[in-house]
This record gives sequence, structure tokens and C-alpha cells, in this order.
Amino acid sequence: MSTRTLTVSAAQLGPVPRSATRAETLARLIRLLEAAAAEGAELVVFPEAALTPFFPHWLVKDEVELRSYFEEDIPGTGTQALFDAARTLGVAFVLGYAERTRDERQFNTAAFVDENGRVIHRYRKVHLPGFRDFQPGTPFQNLEKKYFEVGDLGFGVQAWRNTRIGLAICNDRRWAETYRVLALAGAEVVCLGYNTPASNPHLPESDNLTDFHNHLSMQAGAYQNSMWVIGTAKAGTEEGVSQIGGSAIIAPSGEIVAVARTLDDEIVTAEIDLDMVIRYRRDVFNFSQHRRPEHYTSITRPGA
Amino acid sequence: MSTRTLTVSAAQLGPVPRSATRAETLARLIRLLEAAAAEGAELVVFPEAALTPFFPHWLVKDEVELRSYFEEDIPGTGTQALFDAARTLGVAFVLGYAERTRDERQFNTAAFVDENGRVIHRYRKVHLPGFRDFQPGTPFQNLEKKYFEVGDLGFGVQAWRNTRIGLAICNDRRWAETYRVLALAGAEVVCLGYNTPASNPHLPESDNLTDFHNHLSMQAGAYQNSMWVIGTAKAGTEEGVSQIGGSAIIAPSGEIVAVARTLDDEIVTAEIDLDMVIRYRRDVFNFSQHRRPEHYTSITRPGA
Repeated sequence: MSTRTLTVSAAQLGPVPRSATRAETLARLIRLLEAAAAEGAELVVFPEAALTPFFPHWLVKDEVELRSYFEEDIPGTGTQALFDAARTLGVAFVLGYAERTRDERQFNTAAFVDENGRVIHRYRKVHLPGFRDFQPGTPFQNLEKKYFEVGDLGFGVQAWRNTRIGLAICNDRRWAETYRVLALAGAEVVCLGYNTPASNPHLPESDNLTDFHNHLSMQAGAYQNSMWVIGTAKAGTEEGVSQIGGSAIIAPSGEIVAVARTLDDEIVTAEIDLDMVIRYRRDVFNFSQHRRPEHYTSITRPGA
Repeated sequence: MSTRTLTVSAAQLGPVPRSATRAETLARLIRLLEAAAAEGAELVVFPEAALTPFFPHWLVKDEVELRSYFEEDIPGTGTQALFDAARTLGVAFVLGYAERTRDERQFNTAAFVDENGRVIHRYRKVHLPGFRDFQPGTPFQNLEKKYFEVGDLGFGVQAWRNTRIGLAICNDRRWAETYRVLALAGAEVVCLGYNTPASNPHLPESDNLTDFHNHLSMQAGAYQNSMWVIGTAKAGTEEGVSQIGGSAIIAPSGEIVAVARTLDDEIVTAEIDLDMVIRYRRDVFNFSQHRRPEHYTSITRPGA
């Protein structure tokens, strides 16, 4: 019998409107944290950019508005209550937020906060989708390449309790290298949040497949690396942009063991068997036995 | 309107018993080729090790028997009729076979044979699953690491007509690097054959997921690299080992557009739109815009 289990929750958020105050949004996150704790969760994963609307969907012309979407300190005055709640509840969490550093660099970031309310790991998004410039003639923008730099911390893995945690953000989940690099570093659980429009103005033929592509990418990443994946959406229609839900907890078998049913604030919880990682890695995805790095060289070639 | 289309078939085989003569097996392949041509196929993909039973499933103690499973020439006296049929029909094909070289090296190989019956490309399997030594106490073996060397040709891509073809074999399809290396080299269509037992004696908890894992891996590889994937099974119960079918033609969207319904000889045909590759690569999987090789370095580290 396995004794290495963990109860985890994806804390899906419905839309965060521009009109919401930070206090209102934080209260929603705290309510979700409490609801997850009531279901026994030891780790709760919030979406990408959970504190604000997903502002890369439009061109922000006003510098004050733009600055209002970024966190200069985590925890900061606008987020301390969430960290306090985590400590009180004894629950760890992953929080996605827009980060602005002291030297004015901007990243799309996720923090891993332990059950004592301490930030013990950070990840800055590597695979920024979208564009650097305003795209005319589309119903909404994706200006992540304008607002954020490419993450400079790589795909690190954090030891926590009796497991190892990796973080990724949104578009990272579509790139197989994300999971592989995390798995090679020993990650057993990958936590990722996303904001994913239901339609793609640049490839409308794929619009009926958005939910499928979301799960396909996470399921393949989980299976092919023998990892648990917890994927959490910011869902529903936010500032005119319809976003998918489908927050899910996915096993090293690739199976979805729990999934969101709504496009609103919702907790998705499962008890996960961490030793399943070991069993799949011992057999099917035994990296040391079966990988052939000498045949992968083009993958790390600059400019490839 | 796209004009770059191609009609392709997966030519699934039912079991090839040890008792079958080479002439009997070749006649089955020729019948499948003719049936595919009658459906308009321009390219037909046969399974891995299509000419023989999948002998890595047992320990072959008799050297004459073992040699009988290997081809020293392709085409050779036992296969020439298939090449002749291809030329007569004007159909290209991919054939998996066990290769023995002049210097007595053994590989699990696939050849791409053009519509003139000429071998224009070869691939030798890189990701050999299984073991080097007999595993006692299991209902069947997987001795690929005993019978074959790791392929030494890498994942090459072959220009053919107005497209570029990549080859892979069986277990390769579970490793994301396979598709990525082929896609980086410009492959638009990946052809692969497989022999996949329905159960895994070393991980029985995954036995209900074998078909799911097969399609998941090929669908994710197709989607995340914007490629067409043609996957062809040797299916059914062969020498006591039950193998999955599920031969499929999969679009760059990850959608299965055609799939086998039986565990026996069966043609699965689809007309595929090669420009779909370009559309998905221009938008979602635009490698030059979004990949970050500097963060993938552990993937090509020796011994990783």
C-alpha cells in the first residue's frame, strides 16, 4: 500500500472584471482556499494572473492602469490576507501574478507558497504566446510579448514535504519540453494556471478544439513524463473575452481524475498517489534506460 | 483553397503467425496495397516488423530461426513482389522490417519506398523498449534491446513530392522528442508502425489504458508539432500475445480523422490537407517565435 498521498485542489476562478477591487478578488481567492481546505486540500493551485483581469487581452495605454496589474511584492499589502489565510489553514498554494521587479522588469510569474505562508519557489513564464505589437482587426489582443519578458529562471523544481513540485504557466503546457525538463529535474507534480480564450482569431478553424487541446497537452505531458498535473483555469467571459474552464487534476497515466464543471469559481479536489509516478517511471518512461539524448540535439540548438 | 492534398492509407495487419510462409505474408501486404490503391492512396504505411511475427516477444534460441526474421536486402528475393506491385500501382509505401547489415548489425528498421519502387529513405528505431535479458515469470518477453542496436541514423526527413516525410517506429511515438526533432527538420507527415501488446506484465495497472495511451501519444505529437501522423498496428493475437489495433490517421489539430475498426488486415484511408501543417505552424506552434532552446538544455545532456 502506498503511503505517499497528497490531497490537492485546482481553484478555478471565474472572470475577474476590471471593475473588481483587489480586496474583492482576494476575498474570492480566500473563500476558494477555505473551501479547498474544507475538502482536505494540502495544496491549492490558482490560475495564471489570478489577481487581475488578463490584461494582455487589450492594449493598456494608461501607465497607471498598467502598473495596477503588477505586483511589486509578494506578499504585498494587497495580497497579505491570502498568505495569512494559508498559514491559518495550513494549506500551501500556487499563485499566478504579474510581477514587476525592483529594476522594473516585468514577468508572468507563479509563486509556490508553503503551508506557513512563505514563498519558497518562483517561476517566470518561458513560453510567452502572442505578439509584441497591437494586432488590428482582431476582437481581442494577446500582448504577452509586449508586457512580459521571457522568464529567466528556467524550469526549476522545488522539494516540498515528501515530493518535488514544478511550476508552469498557460502556454508552457503546449510545449513538450516544459514537462520533460521538469521531469528530468525530478518533478512529481506540475502546477500550472491558464487564461485561454475559447476562440483564436488567428486560427478560427481550431475554435471547436480549444478544450480538447487543453486537456490533450496536459494529459500527454503527464503521461509521457509520469507526473501529476494540476491545471487551473481563469474561466468564463472576462472583459468581453470568452475563456475555457476545464481545470483538471491529471494522473501519470494521463487520466483526468477530477475536472471542473463550470466556468466560474469552483474547487476541483483529488487525493493523488505520488508513488504512481515511481511505478510509471520504473517501467514505461524509464528515462535512463530508454532516452537517447544524442539524437535530440536539434531541440537545444539556438534559433531552432 | 488548398491544393496540397495527399491520399494516405494505414495498412493494418492482423497477426502474422510463425507458421506463415514469407510468400503468404507478402501476398497479404500486396492485397492491402492494392486495396489502398483502389481507394486512391498515394502513400501506404505498413506496421513495424510487418514481414514476420514480432519475435522480440519470445527468446529465440535457434540461430536459424532468428536469422529467418531478418532481411539482409530490401528489396530481397522474399519482398521483391511488393516493390513490383508498388511500381505497377504507382503507390509509395513505408515498410517496417528487421534489418541485418552486411557487417551483421541488427536494427528495427523502416524504409520509405517511392512510387517507382525505390528505397529513398531509411530509419532505424531509436527508442528500443524492453530488456536485453530474458525476464522470467512474465507471460511474454520484450527483447528488443537484445535483438536490435539503437538506431544510428537519427530522425531524418525525406523530401517526397510536394511534402516532407519523417519515419518513426512503435515506442518512438511515446517520446515527445521524436516528433519535435522531425518537425524541426521540416517533416509534415510522420509515418510509424507499431506492435503493442494490450497488456503490460510489468505495469498491469495500465492495461485498461493501452489504446488510450497509443492515441494520446500520437495525437499530442501531431498537435504539438503541427504534423500529420499515420500510425499503423500489427493487431490481434499473435503467438499468444494480444496486440492493440487502433491504426489511425491524425491531423495537425490532433484530431483522429480515420481509425481502424478491427484487429485484422484493414485499410484506413483519408485525404489529408498538407497546408493545415502550415496554418498551425504559422499560428500556435510557430517555433521561431515561441520556442526557448536555452531553457531546454537538460534534454540533450548525456545520460539525462
